[in-house]
Amino acid sequence: MGGDKGPSEIVAGAREAAARFGVPVVLVGRPEDIDDPGDLEVWAATEVIDMADDAMQGVRRKKDASMVRAAEAVRDGRASAMVSAGNTGAAMASALLRMGRISGVARPAIATMLPVPGSTPTVLLDSGANAECTPPWLLQFAQMGAAYAVLRLGKDVPTVGLLSIGEEKSKGNELVKGAHALLAEAGALSTGRFVGNVEGRDVLTDAADVVVTDGFTGNVVLKTLEGSVRVVVDALLLAMTSTEEARAAAKVLLPALLPLQAELDPDSYGGAALLGVDGVCIISHGSSSARAIVNAVGLAAEMVAGDLVGSIRRAVTPG
Amino acid sequence: MGGDKGPSEIVAGAREAAARFGVPVVLVGRPEDIDDPGDLEVWAATEVIDMADDAMQGVRRKKDASMVRAAEAVRDGRASAMVSAGNTGAAMASALLRMGRISGVARPAIATMLPVPGSTPTVLLDSGANAECTPPWLLQFAQMGAAYAVLRLGKDVPTVGLLSIGEEKSKGNELVKGAHALLAEAGALSTGRFVGNVEGRDVLTDAADVVVTDGFTGNVVLKTLEGSVRVVVDALLLAMTSTEEARAAAKVLLPALLPLQAELDPDSYGGAALLGVDGVCIISHGSSSARAIVNAVGLAAEMVAGDLVGSIRRAVTPG
Repeated sequence: MGGDKGPSEIVAGAREAAARFGVPVVLVGRPEDIDDPGDLEVWAATEVIDMADDAMQGVRRKKDASMVRAAEAVRDGRASAMVSAGNTGAAMASALLRMGRISGVARPAIATMLPVPGSTPTVLLDSGANAECTPPWLLQFAQMGAAYAVLRLGKDVPTVGLLSIGEEKSKGNELVKGAHALLAEAGALSTGRFVGNVEGRDVLTDAADVVVTDGFTGNVVLKTLEGSVRVVVDALLLAMTSTEEARAAAKVLLPALLPLQAELDPDSYGGAALLGVDGVCIISHGSSSARAIVNAVGLAAEMVAGDLVGSIRRAVTPG
Repeated sequence: MGGDKGPSEIVAGAREAAARFGVPVVLVGRPEDIDDPGDLEVWAATEVIDMADDAMQGVRRKKDASMVRAAEAVRDGRASAMVSAGNTGAAMASALLRMGRISGVARPAIATMLPVPGSTPTVLLDSGANAECTPPWLLQFAQMGAAYAVLRLGKDVPTVGLLSIGEEKSKGNELVKGAHALLAEAGALSTGRFVGNVEGRDVLTDAADVVVTDGFTGNVVLKTLEGSVRVVVDALLLAMTSTEEARAAAKVLLPALLPLQAELDPDSYGGAALLGVDGVCIISHGSSSARAIVNAVGLAAEMVAGDLVGSIRRAVTPG
């Protein structure tokens, strides 16, 4: 039921994903709002938690909400994964309260893919689930992020960086200094290799496959990146349409620019994964297009096939 | 003595600034390293705090360092302002220890200009002086930032936003929620108007003239922006030179793109100001070009003429 573009865009994406990947996709929501499900099964849920709802309250009060029912289906084994394009906080709360946490995980974290032009993306976590964090939680985020990067990026030993404001271990706030000490201990990561502190300028480069931070900083980074890419691209488009000559030249450049645009488009990455809950939960952009939903379903299927939950269970030191 | 490009670039910028603005610029440093000072006076300082030095220790041990002597000259009234392109932490420590704080200011903060294509820049503070902050410090940063925006941007009543991860006052970490409550009180800002929380995507827009945050988050935002602009511009240049046709088209577009490049270039903004110390202190990029130094000297002269220190003294509620 989520998504700024309404259920029809979601349904279109779900149908295409089912056809393309051969995965049985079930739609959960108000049957009267789902116009054209095609061959897809629809499981009725009468309530909707919308963007304005408080996440935790929404999940507690609206027991028949589509997200809550989707999370229950995963908990009960009737579904292998849930995908949502709705209120991020509510999707997270639904997964947390219905699926529960993997044993030993202190706090689930949201892992987002950041595009690195010409290379594999960077996994950023936590990108918004936990505004306030402790050093042991950041250690677990690193462990979960590395396990995710093995599956998601196909890296044998992903590199893990800690986001700070200087490369030296003495740089940063108390949280980061504490986390640095834990990450630098021998055996802190069973999968992955800690490469020390990284800075804001490194997130869109190959400095680390996984960048670990608290959910406040991570969310600010994510939105700063979205904003700056949009501002630069908008200003470029303005310049490219400023004169007749510029428009003609821009047309010639278009084929060379399209691959870059695809790389920078968040819809290419299938959304974010909520790591640490006892089931696969993929959260797509609120502004999700059908294409984003196709990729989100594909990602969910891949994470189920690769046993993401088992990988995280093995990677995490109980905290 | 600072600057990745060495003193000659700094000296060239200083000479040009003196000629252009009619401001008497004094060079402080090792006379033997200053090849061609022209008409500019040189005050000898035998030591250099370099990028590898610890800031506080450097200032305490190297009492004859160029930065320390420059800050002393401001303290003693022999200079009206200091400009440094060296180690940011050491420039800050020199100013703090030699000039001291304005009475009532708990912590000085670094204010950086972020480009907003087609509009006035955004003042971001603290962009790196204080990794760990309290709500009352953020209130003072808002008061200082608003006073700076009046002078720097020529705004009568600058708008002030608090960086968070959602617009609602309930969103964010404990620091931000505490600061929001203080900023929302009547009369919190004598200059400027609090517009509530802003998000990362808003820093390069007109959402607020001044964006307030702790020095950890601010520094991460600043470096994330630098990195993302560079990555996008590099990828564009690569696309624009990928074929003979693309190169020809790019040449046609160049005149339309140059103003944008100038807007996005940090050298256009004359560097960052350290607000809250009892004197004008401008910190230029470590990679400063002569052009950046010209703009930094111009900014320093403007802030002296506009009585930045007096404005901040009047704007701050003692904390």
